[in-house]
Amino acid sequence: MLATVIYGERDVRLDTVPEPQLSTGHDAIVRVVAACVCGSDLWSYRGIAAVKEPKRIGHEFIGIVESIGSEVSTVAVGDFVIAPFYVCDMTCANCVNGVSTSCLHGGWWGAEDRNGGFADGAQGERVRVPLADGTLVATPGHPAPELIPSILTLADVMGTGHHAALSAGVTTGSTVVVVGDGAVGLCAIIAAKRLGASRIVAMSRHADRQALALEFGATDIVEERGDEGIARIKEMFNGIGADCVLECVGTTESMDQAIRSTRPGGTVGYVGVPNGAPELPIRTLFNSNIGVNGGVAPVRNYIEELLPEVLSGAINPGRVFNLELPLSEVAEAYAAMDERRAVKVLLRP
Amino acid sequence: MLATVIYGERDVRLDTVPEPQLSTGHDAIVRVVAACVCGSDLWSYRGIAAVKEPKRIGHEFIGIVESIGSEVSTVAVGDFVIAPFYVCDMTCANCVNGVSTSCLHGGWWGAEDRNGGFADGAQGERVRVPLADGTLVATPGHPAPELIPSILTLADVMGTGHHAALSAGVTTGSTVVVVGDGAVGLCAIIAAKRLGASRIVAMSRHADRQALALEFGATDIVEERGDEGIARIKEMFNGIGADCVLECVGTTESMDQAIRSTRPGGTVGYVGVPNGAPELPIRTLFNSNIGVNGGVAPVRNYIEELLPEVLSGAINPGRVFNLELPLSEVAEAYAAMDERRAVKVLLRP
Repeated sequence: MLATVIYGERDVRLDTVPEPQLSTGHDAIVRVVAACVCGSDLWSYRGIAAVKEPKRIGHEFIGIVESIGSEVSTVAVGDFVIAPFYVCDMTCANCVNGVSTSCLHGGWWGAEDRNGGFADGAQGERVRVPLADGTLVATPGHPAPELIPSILTLADVMGTGHHAALSAGVTTGSTVVVVGDGAVGLCAIIAAKRLGASRIVAMSRHADRQALALEFGATDIVEERGDEGIARIKEMFNGIGADCVLECVGTTESMDQAIRSTRPGGTVGYVGVPNGAPELPIRTLFNSNIGVNGGVAPVRNYIEELLPEVLSGAINPGRVFNLELPLSEVAEAYAAMDERRAVKVLLRP
Repeated sequence: MLATVIYGERDVRLDTVPEPQLSTGHDAIVRVVAACVCGSDLWSYRGIAAVKEPKRIGHEFIGIVESIGSEVSTVAVGDFVIAPFYVCDMTCANCVNGVSTSCLHGGWWGAEDRNGGFADGAQGERVRVPLADGTLVATPGHPAPELIPSILTLADVMGTGHHAALSAGVTTGSTVVVVGDGAVGLCAIIAAKRLGASRIVAMSRHADRQALALEFGATDIVEERGDEGIARIKEMFNGIGADCVLECVGTTESMDQAIRSTRPGGTVGYVGVPNGAPELPIRTLFNSNIGVNGGVAPVRNYIEELLPEVLSGAINPGRVFNLELPLSEVAEAYAAMDERRAVKVLLRP
């Protein structure tokens, strides 16, 4: 079959790779209907995370179950399924606590799983899913084609935006600032609105993303960054800052901006994969009682809650995909994301 | 009058200082009935925080109002009052948000206030209280002598322990670990129990403090520290750690122990004044979704909630005072705390 392999900096190719095979009894083979490129895939693409040897890539997909192992009971051949960006069993102590990204038996796409089998990356024609019962969620019937993009966001960005908002404690009446206008930041706006935020500021300087932010529920746009951006935020909120700030980037600068935009006693909810090691400034946090909460978003735990709203059209996170390409043009998909020509690219095998 | 002045490392003296005078209309003079030495006073005493010039010290006191400024309306001459370890107005945006330690018009004891007047330190005979209406809370009548120690803890350690527990999100059924067996850590046990924790582990290796921890509501004692201590905690809680860990020390080691004792998705509530600059390890926190929340405890906001339980005897945080001395022996009070001969020392002018 065909699958995407990253060879090094800005070198992504569609290669012929072995067909996946069932091997553990708990696995399933899923034919990919749609996949996408993640902002975090760009760390390798840009050479920021070194690629030591050619490696399968991709971790967000939806598709149709083609075969299942003998022990699989929650999905059946022919089901349309959503996979989160990681593997999990949904029965261990961490999964039950709502933190399936820390599954005691879980793993990652494009890597050997704990039983020694290979779990394919998602940017390919098919994927072996190691713990199918925990990992996959079947939709009721096969979704209408126009819902495909929004359903695909449940594999990562919509759930991740939701995690940022939950981690920051967004609730009815909260004032919210979203740092980052990528797909996750935009989805975080949807999430903050769902949770009842009274005011949502999108920090963005790109007209197309500002428009989408407003469509998703942002009430204000702030273009300034750094000290100026923080001054604008404080001015908007009693001179002290916002209750909840959602950090959806992962750089030292964005985290600094998030912390300094938060009012005393407020919380930064962060989901941007920390790039480098920007340790958190404990004195600043301590002096103002600013909490920092978040991490690798346990999106699998959120699918059941968010899926009905996607199916009903109540939320339309799929609008973040502003470019769709066939899998054969995966290299162009990466380039478009890298050059910020696209917010997020949907790939169809 | 007599008041304590710190001159340098291990050099604390009772000096004759000017009598405080009302000066702003919003202030009050309080005759100190009881004061105490705080763990954070020891940073200066031990030379860890440099003392550049002789300085008034102390920030926890209760007493009787002797005179009030013309604008003061919530306390009257003769009232028995509790002062938190800082000055606040309780009307600004931060105070209203529950974070009076970030009061926009507040200040600290033993320093010039914002109007240029001096706010005395607490380890003396009298104190000028700059914003008396916000800062002071009058008790209903004058309390019985045996309640004095517990009431005094509302100025700092009981409220601070409560803040650790609230910051960590302790609620009905939570599993809790308390790092630190000083007065704040011990009060944090009382707080965790009040909030409904199902299990409370005190990390302590001192028999007298262990006994008090058990009396306050700890269900388990762990003597080990570092890797061994963390292994014991994980073993006790499904191999993954506790829901809520209360960090009540402030060193790099204690914060590391707290973070590594927390389960994925759990929260560290911290109130130990960060000693040095142990920045928080964002990657560790991110990978396991461990939240870090807390800071300078807004104890003024908690007095109304905790005072009735102190007055009824439902909680007895005053038990942390295991040494009582006259103010004239303040030097011995510091030495006893420094050498850990006392958990906390109560001083009477």
